[in-house]
Amino acid sequence: MSGADKQARSIGVGLIGTGYMGKCHALAWTSVRTVFGDVARPRLEFLCEVSEDLARERAQALGFARATADWRALIADPAVDVVSITTPNAFHPEMAIAALEAGKHVWCEKPMAPALADARAMRAAARASGRVAVLGYNYIQNPAFRHIEALIAQGAIGTPVQLRAEMDEDFMADAATRFSWKSAAPSGYGALDDFAVHPLSLIQRLFGRVERVFCDMAKPYATRPDDAGAPRAVETHDMANLLLRLEGGVQASLLVNRAAWGRKGRIALQIFGSKGSILYDQERMNEVEIYRADGAASGQGYTRILTGPAHEPYDAFLPAPGHGLGFNDLKVIECRELLRAIDGAPARVVTFDDGLEIERAVHAAARAFEAGRWEDVGALDG
Amino acid sequence: MSGADKQARSIGVGLIGTGYMGKCHALAWTSVRTVFGDVARPRLEFLCEVSEDLARERAQALGFARATADWRALIADPAVDVVSITTPNAFHPEMAIAALEAGKHVWCEKPMAPALADARAMRAAARASGRVAVLGYNYIQNPAFRHIEALIAQGAIGTPVQLRAEMDEDFMADAATRFSWKSAAPSGYGALDDFAVHPLSLIQRLFGRVERVFCDMAKPYATRPDDAGAPRAVETHDMANLLLRLEGGVQASLLVNRAAWGRKGRIALQIFGSKGSILYDQERMNEVEIYRADGAASGQGYTRILTGPAHEPYDAFLPAPGHGLGFNDLKVIECRELLRAIDGAPARVVTFDDGLEIERAVHAAARAFEAGRWEDVGALDG
Amino acid sequence: MSGADKQARSIGVGLIGTGYMGKCHALAWTSVRTVFGDVARPRLEFLCEVSEDLARERAQALGFARATADWRALIADPAVDVVSITTPNAFHPEMAIAALEAGKHVWCEKPMAPALADARAMRAAARASGRVAVLGYNYIQNPAFRHIEALIAQGAIGTPVQLRAEMDEDFMADAATRFSWKSAAPSGYGALDDFAVHPLSLIQRLFGRVERVFCDMAKPYATRPDDAGAPRAVETHDMANLLLRLEGGVQASLLVNRAAWGRKGRIALQIFGSKGSILYDQERMNEVEIYRADGAASGQGYTRILTGPAHEPYDAFLPAPGHGLGFNDLKVIECRELLRAIDGAPARVVTFDDGLEIERAVHAAARAFEAGRWEDVGALDG
Amino acid sequence: MSGADKQARSIGVGLIGTGYMGKCHALAWTSVRTVFGDVARPRLEFLCEVSEDLARERAQALGFARATADWRALIADPAVDVVSITTPNAFHPEMAIAALEAGKHVWCEKPMAPALADARAMRAAARASGRVAVLGYNYIQNPAFRHIEALIAQGAIGTPVQLRAEMDEDFMADAATRFSWKSAAPSGYGALDDFAVHPLSLIQRLFGRVERVFCDMAKPYATRPDDAGAPRAVETHDMANLLLRLEGGVQASLLVNRAAWGRKGRIALQIFGSKGSILYDQERMNEVEIYRADGAASGQGYTRILTGPAHEPYDAFLPAPGHGLGFNDLKVIECRELLRAIDGAPARVVTFDDGLEIERAVHAAARAFEAGRWEDVGALDG
Repeated sequence: MSGADKQARSIGVGLIGTGYMGKCHALAWTSVRTVFGDVARPRLEFLCEVSEDLARERAQALGFARATADWRALIADPAVDVVSITTPNAFHPEMAIAALEAGKHVWCEKPMAPALADARAMRAAARASGRVAVLGYNYIQNPAFRHIEALIAQGAIGTPVQLRAEMDEDFMADAATRFSWKSAAPSGYGALDDFAVHPLSLIQRLFGRVERVFCDMAKPYATRPDDAGAPRAVETHDMANLLLRLEGGVQASLLVNRAAWGRKGRIALQIFGSKGSILYDQERMNEVEIYRADGAASGQGYTRILTGPAHEPYDAFLPAPGHGLGFNDLKVIECRELLRAIDGAPARVVTFDDGLEIERAVHAAARAFEAGRWEDVGALDG
Repeated sequence: MSGADKQARSIGVGLIGTGYMGKCHALAWTSVRTVFGDVARPRLEFLCEVSEDLARERAQALGFARATADWRALIADPAVDVVSITTPNAFHPEMAIAALEAGKHVWCEKPMAPALADARAMRAAARASGRVAVLGYNYIQNPAFRHIEALIAQGAIGTPVQLRAEMDEDFMADAATRFSWKSAAPSGYGALDDFAVHPLSLIQRLFGRVERVFCDMAKPYATRPDDAGAPRAVETHDMANLLLRLEGGVQASLLVNRAAWGRKGRIALQIFGSKGSILYDQERMNEVEIYRADGAASGQGYTRILTGPAHEPYDAFLPAPGHGLGFNDLKVIECRELLRAIDGAPARVVTFDDGLEIERAVHAAARAFEAGRWEDVGALDG
Repeated sequence: MSGADKQARSIGVGLIGTGYMGKCHALAWTSVRTVFGDVARPRLEFLCEVSEDLARERAQALGFARATADWRALIADPAVDVVSITTPNAFHPEMAIAALEAGKHVWCEKPMAPALADARAMRAAARASGRVAVLGYNYIQNPAFRHIEALIAQGAIGTPVQLRAEMDEDFMADAATRFSWKSAAPSGYGALDDFAVHPLSLIQRLFGRVERVFCDMAKPYATRPDDAGAPRAVETHDMANLLLRLEGGVQASLLVNRAAWGRKGRIALQIFGSKGSILYDQERMNEVEIYRADGAASGQGYTRILTGPAHEPYDAFLPAPGHGLGFNDLKVIECRELLRAIDGAPARVVTFDDGLEIERAVHAAARAFEAGRWEDVGALDG
Repeated sequence: MSGADKQARSIGVGLIGTGYMGKCHALAWTSVRTVFGDVARPRLEFLCEVSEDLARERAQALGFARATADWRALIADPAVDVVSITTPNAFHPEMAIAALEAGKHVWCEKPMAPALADARAMRAAARASGRVAVLGYNYIQNPAFRHIEALIAQGAIGTPVQLRAEMDEDFMADAATRFSWKSAAPSGYGALDDFAVHPLSLIQRLFGRVERVFCDMAKPYATRPDDAGAPRAVETHDMANLLLRLEGGVQASLLVNRAAWGRKGRIALQIFGSKGSILYDQERMNEVEIYRADGAASGQGYTRILTGPAHEPYDAFLPAPGHGLGFNDLKVIECRELLRAIDGAPARVVTFDDGLEIERAVHAAARAFEAGRWEDVGALDG
């Protein structure tokens, strides 16, 4: 298809869920075509929420044409070509599989599902459908992170030998925070599946597969007050420390904590190689630091790079360097990559295949924690 | 008007110019209603560029319904309620005045105009029109900067006694950069009007009027190569150092440099008061640092605050703190404030009245540089 | 003894070894009495090096009265009250035990010894002697770290729940660095005993004992060139990742790497508690950051404290805050604490008892690495 | 003289004053020969304080052999070869001139004297004496600052075009601080002579002479409480903003504030050149940042260099980089340079000639403030 054809073409969008990520998706669909000139123009066709009233209100707020409380109706709608799924994780499998079976492309938030079997089923549905199925691991889209990938690929730090990753926020840090679904077992393991999947998506881009894993999980607070104020035993672990060995022999650690007072959106990487090292922290998402072991010792140090038009695709947003992208811009880039995938163009996305690999590492970590020893992640089946 | 009415209402937008700021305006118009629920929904009606072909191409790219190469046609169009003017500065007066006279609201990029008389005429037109006329000083919209305003208003640092402001980028830092309009006298003074106006808009919000000013301007390079590579004398000053006294007696300095290698989007503030101090740097636009002189000396230090939902209106973009807004988000906030002003609601904008104050300080600085002594900015006429 | 008596009294010093740490000890002995008014004045009596010539040269350079190549002569000398032992680790046991048996006080560099049995013997000798036996874990002396201890003791961050520690330098980072004793098995495990002991000394101060440990060690380079340039298999591990559980239930991680390009003297701590968190990095040794979860969310952030006279014993060096202590100053403080211990005053030192605890954690980590499972450190014998 | 001779030789030291700087001098004299092997060994001969009792007490504390309350006796003593003068500024001229006339070398704290005529007389005495006369501008001794000098000399940032300097502390920031001699006119101008002289000593090393100056001084508080608590008019200015033009055409600014809450020992430099820029802050005195405009835009950024053995003379203190020097170490380096100057070796010192240049810039600034216009510093007489 020619560029002009692509530009002329539009694509129908359905959105299920309008919380934190739902609004992010809506914003991305709204502005992707204005930011990027090379993709189809989205038509915001259909929105689904838990009640008709709420759906109507949210559709008007977010600029969608029609509203429903029946997500199956949305998926079945012929005007809808691609479905954004931003509901709680437990709903992902059923919705994503149904959408794929209905011939829709799917943009599903991460993680795939609490149960590994469900994630496998999602991947199987994606493969069977021939449709594009993408997960919302937006941090891989940051121009700063893309630059890290390019640096490593170019050998700027030689052969990587060690990785340290951390992800921390503090929304569970207050001991007085009430017991909620996040502290209940059905929600998953805790920080392990809530947080670790994000740095794992970055690790996957940089180094490929996790080969084996050790894990220690802990609870900062044994109980949390229930709605009556009585202590209720917490069932999930807000803190998890993982040791990893990656494809190619890289030694790695991954520390995640959602009860880390002071941390708001930290995803920190330290990557050590045979010729240098790279530092990154999502809380300063427009910066990358690189140390190169060359030249005189007196001149060596970490170079702090501010992203700019030289770091793709920053220039689609701004022509001036150092002016800064924000979190929501990452979702716009992700949306553009999704549209490129739908067009059959090379695209930078986390597919359901990729996502299943991440889930497998998470579940291996949980087994390692139970057993108190290394766990092999194992070769990907199928 | 009720909230529901506002939401139902739409507003017709015309855009003149589609460069750096033109695209920013387009993005803001596109997403403002999805980000903020409390404003009218923009209709992207009409776009003007220098040729019909370019205008059509840009209208399609930016999602505008119609295109023209005749800006007067755009201004005259009845479907257009508000006009974004993002052309080179020299065009601002004619276009803004015409738009206001045609009964349109105006959103004009900064600065107002190279000549003070033109800025005065623009203000007069705004006053006569009864329409909303707003300048694109978007840095005042940053939740981080809003928080600084609130802190000072609350007395968090006591009585302010000194301000230091800097604005630096490096797009003119390469001596080999060809002589262009930016180095020619008709473009203005150089860094003084290109850069100083931005920190002056922040100073105005914090402290009110500039009372007197001293100025030293300098050229990093006496000549730049012309298109044939021959040296041509540079007519503007890429560097300017200003000393100021502000309303209320605050001593201030303002250093601006568009040839500052390494600086990409720096707008740095240091505000010292009788009970503490505040630091800010636009290159890390999601951070504010405050020092409070209270409690034990052993515990005093700068507290680095990451903006979040507690800092209005961050929460319209994201519910999670520390995830980061970007430059383009500031323009979305500015657009929302413009729409509030049009609705007659209290709005946080730099009006043409405010803008003229900024221009007057700039021109006083230029006179001070010529005379080598303090120059009074003088009371605002009218 | 009265203060005046203490001041009048002097103490005879012997120094064995004049390398990196030997010079640090010499400087500390030279200036401790001028910095601190409350200790005996050292007399620099005797210095030992590997040859008579070198010993004489170093004695003159470092201001010692006499020189010898026979360390037993130094230890036997009646004018020597306290012996600084700064030789390679393998010599520590024999020298320290002999000195203690000769009735001397001992200031021995860390770690105690490569073999755990030797460390035990050192501790036994110290106990039997009734003399002061102190290890050179100088990082605990930093006023910044002392402040961290005080903050935690005061409950400034509530109950600690997680600790992350890292120690990294890059002197082994170059793959071209020749095979040396540091890569040979007799030197010990590698980063584990070379580096981990330092953060373990800090952990011990803050939280007490390590209860159990898991460990993963790795080699960045399988071989290093021997003196002829041929590849020789590396026998030690330059990188080690430890997971720990500490007394009181704190979950901890400890990552050490002496092949970490770009890191020069990093010892980083992140301490998360129920009411806040604390950050520290030895590369910026005059700074501590604390986050307190109190007050309005809009005002919360990390407060970066610059050490000053309010942080004991900074004021012995300088009356002005923020002017900065250096690494060698830590050794001066350590020397003062040693002198206080000798005077029978309360002192802040790492005794041979404390040191043995650190060694036991290290050896438990090595066992855990071999076994691939958690290892209990076990209760301290005797 | 051969190296061995130098090492054998000793030098007799007299110290007048034992406050902040007096102790710094004493520490420097105590440890200089242990740190540096290439200088004479100081003998701490004679100490002077305001009373015999205090003198004796301080002599014992600081390790001086004899004590007196008569500074003329100290100067006249034949065992004294060099005199450290660390008394209040007003005493510097009489003491320094007497010492020089008595044939002693002089190490005098900065600034020279409140009155320019006195500074001139000091320089004349130094010239007439043929002795070494050095001022205590220790910040030029920092290995980090030396590296900046070397970088500029090597052309690492091309031709310098602009300098920004700031020096700030907060010991006068509290409005409740009692009126003291620092607020009384006889002490001088305020921040101008108290602070600006330090960055001026750095500017002098980097760029030579100040050619002209403009100045704005201000008082954060018009009054301070006297000892009875009544308001008393402040006579000095705690804040001063200077604009400068330097030898060679560099445009400069110099902002100094001793009432800057939060700043403890800040001396910040920003140096912009035609090929890059350099950043420095004394509060992080072991770091230098350099931006080089070369290579791909995607890789450009500020490189943060931690000082180490590659930055002379760090290696005299420590063999490991990044471990950090402290403020007192700068005084040790200064002492060594003084001893080199006494030996007739090339030395890095601020002579009384250099110091007079600094004083002349300060007094020109004061005149500029009075006149409200640029003031030429003028050619150095004699």
